[in-house]
Amino acid sequence: MISIKHSAVLESLRHKKPLVHHITNYVTVNDCANITLSIGASPVMSHAWEEVEEMVSHADALVLNIGTLDHYQEKSMLLAGHAANSRDIPVIVDPVGTGATRYRTDFMSRLIGELQISVIKGNAGEIGTLAGADARVRGVDAGNVRGDLITIAQDFALETGISIAISGAMDIVSDGSKVLIVENGHSMMGRISGTGCMATSIIGSFAAVHRDMAEASAISLAAFGIAGERAAACCSAPGSFKTALFDHLALLTPEELARNAKIRTA
Amino acid sequence: MISIKHSAVLESLRHKKPLVHHITNYVTVNDCANITLSIGASPVMSHAWEEVEEMVSHADALVLNIGTLDHYQEKSMLLAGHAANSRDIPVIVDPVGTGATRYRTDFMSRLIGELQISVIKGNAGEIGTLAGADARVRGVDAGNVRGDLITIAQDFALETGISIAISGAMDIVSDGSKVLIVENGHSMMGRISGTGCMATSIIGSFAAVHRDMAEASAISLAAFGIAGERAAACCSAPGSFKTALFDHLALLTPEELARNAKIRTA
Amino acid sequence: MISIKHSAVLESLRHKKPLVHHITNYVTVNDCANITLSIGASPVMSHAWEEVEEMVSHADALVLNIGTLDHYQEKSMLLAGHAANSRDIPVIVDPVGTGATRYRTDFMSRLIGELQISVIKGNAGEIGTLAGADARVRGVDAGNVRGDLITIAQDFALETGISIAISGAMDIVSDGSKVLIVENGHSMMGRISGTGCMATSIIGSFAAVHRDMAEASAISLAAFGIAGERAAACCSAPGSFKTALFDHLALLTPEELARNAKIRTA
Repeated sequence: MISIKHSAVLESLRHKKPLVHHITNYVTVNDCANITLSIGASPVMSHAWEEVEEMVSHADALVLNIGTLDHYQEKSMLLAGHAANSRDIPVIVDPVGTGATRYRTDFMSRLIGELQISVIKGNAGEIGTLAGADARVRGVDAGNVRGDLITIAQDFALETGISIAISGAMDIVSDGSKVLIVENGHSMMGRISGTGCMATSIIGSFAAVHRDMAEASAISLAAFGIAGERAAACCSAPGSFKTALFDHLALLTPEELARNAKIRTA
Repeated sequence: MISIKHSAVLESLRHKKPLVHHITNYVTVNDCANITLSIGASPVMSHAWEEVEEMVSHADALVLNIGTLDHYQEKSMLLAGHAANSRDIPVIVDPVGTGATRYRTDFMSRLIGELQISVIKGNAGEIGTLAGADARVRGVDAGNVRGDLITIAQDFALETGISIAISGAMDIVSDGSKVLIVENGHSMMGRISGTGCMATSIIGSFAAVHRDMAEASAISLAAFGIAGERAAACCSAPGSFKTALFDHLALLTPEELARNAKIRTA
Repeated sequence: MISIKHSAVLESLRHKKPLVHHITNYVTVNDCANITLSIGASPVMSHAWEEVEEMVSHADALVLNIGTLDHYQEKSMLLAGHAANSRDIPVIVDPVGTGATRYRTDFMSRLIGELQISVIKGNAGEIGTLAGADARVRGVDAGNVRGDLITIAQDFALETGISIAISGAMDIVSDGSKVLIVENGHSMMGRISGTGCMATSIIGSFAAVHRDMAEASAISLAAFGIAGERAAACCSAPGSFKTALFDHLALLTPEELARNAKIRTA
């Protein structure tokens, strides 16, 4: 289902080792750093107003994750985002918990209004909330959304010019014109903290080396999903599964990615 | 020693998957998230003044952990605590490092004065300090306390109306009337960071589904202790022990909990 | 290559279990806590202005790591550093990302000017920047430095009176008079996040029990390097390697350290 070109993107990532600047939550930040290294990129975390723009000047992509957003981070993200836009590097946003509180939903609206965002990757409840669908979100779980997710993704991408990735048992990615469906992954990935955040870090890593944001997102979700499938094959409990997840993403070869990725157009 | 009713509480927890809101330290926050998932509940972390009350409105329990307390978190905890009280969901407090600095001890006094707390879970030095016993605490370790810990727990619970859990080689839990002793666990649990914090997250998870706070605490410490015993059986070094600890808590069945819990009344 | 005296330092560390106060970044803080426990010391993390000096009053060493420095932490570090100096306990500094931003470089100059620092442990780019060499740093990776690293370390140590440790494939430590070369370690250590920070925490642990700062640093890097070599022997992927790294540092005996440490004078 995946063409050879997609596996070449992984080769390119590992060759270029892009620097992925994160402003992210303090719950899963270590997982984000390690998953970025596992796929072959280099992470850097920095949020101080005094330096965040200068740090972005070295980066190849910027990941903004609002998992533990606060007043200080709001400005950090805006400063970094504008710096990224002025350098024309991709900005990937994870709207963790959007819909659970008004604060997060409002800040996401502000980010979308003020920055040029390349990709928003969230679960159904988060993206549904942003897209104005009838969504119910509690905490940071997926929540419930009425309506067809493919339509929601495509329409919202078309409206905003942002590539939209909805993670779930079946991942949906759209840039407004094409829709890509990714059917890799394993339910164990929902039994540990941070897989959503890690997926976004991987998207940041691929987006740094591949111009087509929907393709970069789909390849990322496929690669991570394959690692999850392999980790689940060895490990049915969360501690050892998590360890294996990092292992299998690092061990994944471009050829294995090409052979096992289940990406199709909708 | 444990009655069938106690194992039914674990079934109930896994069925209801309660949302446990944490305001906690940045050292062990990821462990708290993952241990909450391992026992079968759902964690959410949020501290921004703008949203913390709204996030609590979705939660089934609130965990406050002062491991890296600062001025910002003080207000976050008070806002969240009042919101939890108004919704009548349990508030579980881990007084990490109380006694090591005046700042922590004073803030704990304030929390106890202003909020209705359901459970305080600490080590001997922390609880001893709060209870006014002759305690010496250095850093975040257990410290030394003069006096009988059972009496300290029971008297302090009686005085405050809060269930008190003192963790140690032998855990002591009291709500002022009954005293429960838990004799599960393994010394390896003291060789990794965060087991104290994780225990508190587990208590938050059980307290969300079981009204009797002393029982909920004792069941939590038994379940975690059994996982520790099993992890120690396979792994005598801290890295692999920690991985196994998450595994064995997730794998623990209600029947195994009932069979292996060593809970008795004092 | 290492004398018996050096292995006695590890025995002493495990006997005394020194308390190592950290003010560090939120990316690798959990790894720092666990590696401190693995070597046999006791970690405490605290940054609140209200308590940081009092917490230092219990500590045997202070570790300052600027990996996610911000305005709040600047003052925390200065307060803690002055308290450590007044008690004459060692202050170990990790200048993470120095050279990547002006903010970090300037703050390091301020720390060096205001505090009496015992050891600075960084990679070639970070130390090169501080020493005024022609260094290029991007993010938190090692960067490129022109000039002989041994000369840079020795001259900078002589100029400042601070022991300087440059980590790399070959570690270089100097206190201005002697230069120690450590040739333990494995390239896998660069494939996970936090090994640089962990090395600094280990130096803090050894520095708490051994007066000669260059020796304490070299022993630390040898011990950690041996653990890395052993972890790499079992585990060629990053998740399992990281788990094994904690295991092997905890399992390392003084005799094994003496037998396997590759420390020599330059």
